[in-house]
Amino acid sequence: MADDTADGHDHAHGYITAKEDYLKRLRRIEGQARGLQRMVEEEKYCIDILTQVSAMTSALQSVAIALLDDHISHCVVDAAVAGGPEAEAKIKEATDAIARLVRS
Amino acid sequence: MADDTADGHDHAHGYITAKEDYLKRLRRIEGQARGLQRMVEEEKYCIDILTQVSAMTSALQSVAIALLDDHISHCVVDAAVAGGPEAEAKIKEATDAIARLVRS
Amino acid sequence: MADDTADGHDHAHGYITAKEDYLKRLRRIEGQARGLQRMVEEEKYCIDILTQVSAMTSALQSVAIALLDDHISHCVVDAAVAGGPEAEAKIKEATDAIARLVRS
Amino acid sequence: MADDTADGHDHAHGYITAKEDYLKRLRRIEGQARGLQRMVEEEKYCIDILTQVSAMTSALQSVAIALLDDHISHCVVDAAVAGGPEAEAKIKEATDAIARLVRS
Repeated sequence: MADDTADGHDHAHGYITAKEDYLKRLRRIEGQARGLQRMVEEEKYCIDILTQVSAMTSALQSVAIALLDDHISHCVVDAAVAGGPEAEAKIKEATDAIARLVRS
Repeated sequence: MADDTADGHDHAHGYITAKEDYLKRLRRIEGQARGLQRMVEEEKYCIDILTQVSAMTSALQSVAIALLDDHISHCVVDAAVAGGPEAEAKIKEATDAIARLVRS
Repeated sequence: MADDTADGHDHAHGYITAKEDYLKRLRRIEGQARGLQRMVEEEKYCIDILTQVSAMTSALQSVAIALLDDHISHCVVDAAVAGGPEAEAKIKEATDAIARLVRS
Repeated sequence: MADDTADGHDHAHGYITAKEDYLKRLRRIEGQARGLQRMVEEEKYCIDILTQVSAMTSALQSVAIALLDDHISHCVVDAAVAGGPEAEAKIKEATDAIARLVRS
């Protein structure tokens, strides 16, 4: 059940149509986290572990960019069409999220 | 069992003394990946999911920086002391890993 | 003269009201680039140069985030209100720019 | 004249042999900063400005990675060979600089 009714949103979140795709990507990322533990357990070479960390970071960033895309296409656009202070608040919230991503 | 005997390294990898600490961090990161799946399952708000993705990316980068630190303090320094072409190769390998991290 | 007439935009770009502020920031960034040259000329310590490079990178990212904010608040919102394929194209273009920033 | 005598370093900084190359790259980056000012002056399209900001950020990161490479190959390696607490301090200093870069 979506929480959008509860918090007063009148539509589903943007990513919901692609929910299965996001879950698949996140399960793969979870698998990468487990793979990293196995590498440390088996005392693999640092540089090989670092290569996997970079791959996992890129996979996470792709999920973030896809979420942002869905969010802007749905929530931000809907708020923009509705106009008023909520539109401004949504845009501020989205650019704050972008700033956190660019700096993380 | 370490693979350092197999690949001709004559010492343990730098991170081994802190192995439990790395495993603990990676288990926490794995938990974050599972938490993200739960958020998508429960159709949480995109921006809240993105905040968790940024936190997870930062946690991964901290692991990477700690691994690099251990790697330089041990493998690179040992190779530097031994000198010769292996020292150069180790440094090249480390800076390539840094470049991948900075760009990922 | 704005190029928005030329390319069919019916409004000024979002950043134009803050033009002087952007120019001031970019002049400061240009000054940082010159400062870095002076440090190299005077053979300053690598780590001190790197600290300045990190500061300059952060300043550039702040400009990018501010530009994106202005762009989404104006161009993307206006396109969203107008609707149709141009709205979609604008959002795609904005998220591509975000992806380049997150990965650079 | 290098400042390494002054601060007790007994060798030139790593980047000095490539000084002209660094200056050339930094002059190009300074030119990019001026190009960005021109784009804002002429009210170019935000997305085109952002593309240039991403290119400039990448150029800066390449300079940083090259400086780190030179620094590790020279200062860190020399300190490692000398050993003792200075070696440790140099490695700590280098990994702190890496952390700032990865996070910036």
